[in-house]
Amino acid sequence: MLLRMSSLFLRTLRDDPADAEVPSHKLLVRAGYVRRVAPGVYSWLPLGKLVLENVTRIVREEMNRMGAQEVLFPALLPREYYEATGRWTEYGDTLFRLKDRKGADYLLGPTHEEMFTDMVKGEYSSYKDYPVTLYQIQTKYRDEARPRAGILRGREFVMKDSYSFDLDDDGLKRSYEQHREAYIRTFDRLGLTYKICFATSGAMGGSASEEFLAPAATGEDTFVACHHCGYAANAEAVTTPAPAAPAGEHPALRVLDTPDTPTIESLVAHVNERHGLNVTAADTLKNVVVKVATPGSDKTEVLVIGVPGDREIDFKRLEASLAPGEPAIFEAEDFARHPGLVRGYIGPQVLKGLGIRYLVDPRVVAGTSWVTGANEPGKHAVNVVAGRDFVADGTIEAAEVRAGDDCPACGSPLSIDRGIEIGHIFQLGRKYADAAKLDALGPDGKPVRITMGSYGIGVSRAVAVLVEQKHDELGLVWPREVAPADVHIVGTGKENQIEAALQLAEELQARGVRVLVDDRAGVSPGVKFKDAELLGMPTIVVIGRGLAQGVAELRDRVTGAKQEVPIAEAADRVEAACRA
Amino acid sequence: MLLRMSSLFLRTLRDDPADAEVPSHKLLVRAGYVRRVAPGVYSWLPLGKLVLENVTRIVREEMNRMGAQEVLFPALLPREYYEATGRWTEYGDTLFRLKDRKGADYLLGPTHEEMFTDMVKGEYSSYKDYPVTLYQIQTKYRDEARPRAGILRGREFVMKDSYSFDLDDDGLKRSYEQHREAYIRTFDRLGLTYKICFATSGAMGGSASEEFLAPAATGEDTFVACHHCGYAANAEAVTTPAPAAPAGEHPALRVLDTPDTPTIESLVAHVNERHGLNVTAADTLKNVVVKVATPGSDKTEVLVIGVPGDREIDFKRLEASLAPGEPAIFEAEDFARHPGLVRGYIGPQVLKGLGIRYLVDPRVVAGTSWVTGANEPGKHAVNVVAGRDFVADGTIEAAEVRAGDDCPACGSPLSIDRGIEIGHIFQLGRKYADAAKLDALGPDGKPVRITMGSYGIGVSRAVAVLVEQKHDELGLVWPREVAPADVHIVGTGKENQIEAALQLAEELQARGVRVLVDDRAGVSPGVKFKDAELLGMPTIVVIGRGLAQGVAELRDRVTGAKQEVPIAEAADRVEAACRA
Repeated sequence: MLLRMSSLFLRTLRDDPADAEVPSHKLLVRAGYVRRVAPGVYSWLPLGKLVLENVTRIVREEMNRMGAQEVLFPALLPREYYEATGRWTEYGDTLFRLKDRKGADYLLGPTHEEMFTDMVKGEYSSYKDYPVTLYQIQTKYRDEARPRAGILRGREFVMKDSYSFDLDDDGLKRSYEQHREAYIRTFDRLGLTYKICFATSGAMGGSASEEFLAPAATGEDTFVACHHCGYAANAEAVTTPAPAAPAGEHPALRVLDTPDTPTIESLVAHVNERHGLNVTAADTLKNVVVKVATPGSDKTEVLVIGVPGDREIDFKRLEASLAPGEPAIFEAEDFARHPGLVRGYIGPQVLKGLGIRYLVDPRVVAGTSWVTGANEPGKHAVNVVAGRDFVADGTIEAAEVRAGDDCPACGSPLSIDRGIEIGHIFQLGRKYADAAKLDALGPDGKPVRITMGSYGIGVSRAVAVLVEQKHDELGLVWPREVAPADVHIVGTGKENQIEAALQLAEELQARGVRVLVDDRAGVSPGVKFKDAELLGMPTIVVIGRGLAQGVAELRDRVTGAKQEVPIAEAADRVEAACRA
Repeated sequence: MLLRMSSLFLRTLRDDPADAEVPSHKLLVRAGYVRRVAPGVYSWLPLGKLVLENVTRIVREEMNRMGAQEVLFPALLPREYYEATGRWTEYGDTLFRLKDRKGADYLLGPTHEEMFTDMVKGEYSSYKDYPVTLYQIQTKYRDEARPRAGILRGREFVMKDSYSFDLDDDGLKRSYEQHREAYIRTFDRLGLTYKICFATSGAMGGSASEEFLAPAATGEDTFVACHHCGYAANAEAVTTPAPAAPAGEHPALRVLDTPDTPTIESLVAHVNERHGLNVTAADTLKNVVVKVATPGSDKTEVLVIGVPGDREIDFKRLEASLAPGEPAIFEAEDFARHPGLVRGYIGPQVLKGLGIRYLVDPRVVAGTSWVTGANEPGKHAVNVVAGRDFVADGTIEAAEVRAGDDCPACGSPLSIDRGIEIGHIFQLGRKYADAAKLDALGPDGKPVRITMGSYGIGVSRAVAVLVEQKHDELGLVWPREVAPADVHIVGTGKENQIEAALQLAEELQARGVRVLVDDRAGVSPGVKFKDAELLGMPTIVVIGRGLAQGVAELRDRVTGAKQEVPIAEAADRVEAACRA
């Protein structure tokens, strides 16, 4: 491959795009790799297309290596498949829906569990057919509420999704492990740094699930890690260890006058100063009202969540815990319709009587005593004991996770970081097989319900994540295997330097090296150097003033190291760098 | 590559699918290459995906070789781009339209002229930047009124589309010629038989245009060819040579009683028998009323088309001539609303008075005399002379084309055949550049409007067309470069034959040969042979009873030739066949 800057369809930009906030978005646009077409919808220019193609190839090779077989589904899918599993409605506004000329309902596939299940059902029938793992690398559509960060969270994006089909749970575990290993190989080859985290399964259903999160300051996901035992989990999936139930009696519940204490802070100050208590925010029980919508239904449930007062509700954790239900904030007009809920002074004591479901943080175990609302304006209650003065309808993981929280595996303090999801593997189980009645005829002639795994890699997203992790202040820095070219040869100045650059380019091309050569006439060396740094090929060769002395300069884009080499050796040296 | 039938996700079918009419549809489904998901929407199974990938690779290589640069656009496109060129409405029902969660209008791209134009405008500004040719290989969407024939005419399909951008008409002609040559190389490599035909440009706009049509009995396109001068044209694009205007005077128009002559046949018989004339159907002027809708408008025009009575109206030719207008049949209730048009007895004499536009076949030149309707029930007129008794508002190519018609280039008789469009090249001109105001700053500082070409290859369709042209009664027959594998090794019978088959498979794989091996236990030789013929790899090796004597059988899937070879030489022989 030999790309010439003189004809390459590429114009680099001096300034960051106005709508860009994260490095990958800024740099991929500035370096002419992608262009925006609509919110969350991007085009790939030649250099971007090459990177996308390289990532795709690596993903495909590793999937083939693990024995997965490649197929390709349409993106335009009839409603009926997703109706059968309830996802036509469960997906809510995230699903792009459309009608064809006959009025039939279609969707643009956000993920293809239903389709793969149907395909296997169509071809396979006997237990001897299994196990099988199928995958596709395909364009997917999700109408994100907040498309952002260029190709990091797009509404049209390229994904590799695969699905394993096994006869039993042990088979599923093996398929899951194979995927886990294939993902490790894939992300290692891509040059990504990542952490494998326990995860929730969201709208997918199913049980065991892990996410591959790429640590990045701009990440939308939060994850915890335990440096003692190695536990790592997406914040949504962190489980809170329940403390032991305290023994002993508590004094009777008592209602206190607490005027003007709408916040936890003011409440704690008030009861300690005016009523002689000695409590902290962690001793108070904060009760947050939400309304929960069920996609595809008009019903909305009012729900109260109780968490220790020193913690905020983490809305993403709440959403994950309630999925597919969709929680929303309980507004002033909602309170107006529920006079039993006294805003700012809610206590769980009355919820049963109001017929409102109450879920608590796992720390609120039976026998714990709390300061909480007394359900009257300006009044709170103390010595409100779980199990005695109220009984919750269950626990929920909704409170924020904090650095230093106990590791659920070993109790050591957790660290907390931000990351971007680049892969997700999970054991779906039989949800989709049940919906499609996917059975194999067993050796005894009886049907065996198939169990499935679902595994995804964000292919176009991986391009952006590589930039998030690898760029520097000068521009892009590509790992060799995904770089659009191995080497960027810069011919500066007069004609004969450009000619020498082209000569080297052709020699390297003949040796199978992928070359980008800057052969532009009338462009200053400074501009060419800046472009070479911005575009990010791993090796840069400068053929400039040194040509008269028979030398070229070799630069390593990653380390910044520069060295002069005799021009006659340049091809060998570059080739060696590429094969390293 | 080594595929094992024992684990390959493939089940061949004994019977043709019920909805399949054409060989490619029947065979690709029976051989387990594709599966239907919805009308015109298909999934690709592993062998199908490999063929699609091979076709894609060949198309990509030939586009790169001609210097075109690959980019990738989204399929989900905002309305605004297509609104600017009028195609949001012009496309009518063929466009898939949808709304996002905010209510903004989107479409699924049926073709990307607008997007490419916008992209070039975004990057390029100077005349020095041009020419440039960009392409993509991408999934496209058209809501066809009659999706049919499996992947031959789908609603979701893979296309290569490219666009050239030039400063002047000569440049456009060069770009067009380069594409023409690249297409010839591409289709030759794919192993397709094709004819390059003059074409109309349909909804695309523009001028010079050619289609690559693959002759096939099941083709939806009709094309003519002149075996004398080499002229070839899609039936829609055939031009009718106008005869010389006859000299001399004609008798005055005369109205005859012609009761019960609603058809041309009955009319000719009547006037010859009862009125002593000696005319044929070709001497009559048949006037057909149509109503023409304009997409995006409520207006419908009534239009009368005059053709010699021995020819039918070819509705596809009519549509091509009126595009983007959409003609429809003038129904009984339409006649009821236009009492001036006397059904079965319409003559052009009154149309001007009725304010109805009248277009005639090019054969209806001034001075020709016709038998036609007299605009009264049961009456016709004779000696109705064009230019004297009526004046048409123009000519139109709408009459059917017939074998033996005059070649418009040399006058020799034309032959007529059916074919499938596999490629289309045309000189768009400045339509899209005008809409987007795509200018280059010229050397004199003045803007130069860019001129464009548009070029398409049906990538997924090419897979089906290959089947249409290459299959036989036993199944698929793939040209080597697009075949899923080079060789299909069949191990029959006992274990050691399957073992020998696997050994040969591994040896060939190590030599870079793409291998499919039938290593299934407990499947009869007859079933394996049938599958090998159905699946269509170019070389088949049978390791069966001959193994005891140290021989294998080599079969050529194309010629059917069989020969025994020593098993020790099998790998060399197969490799030689693959490199041939």
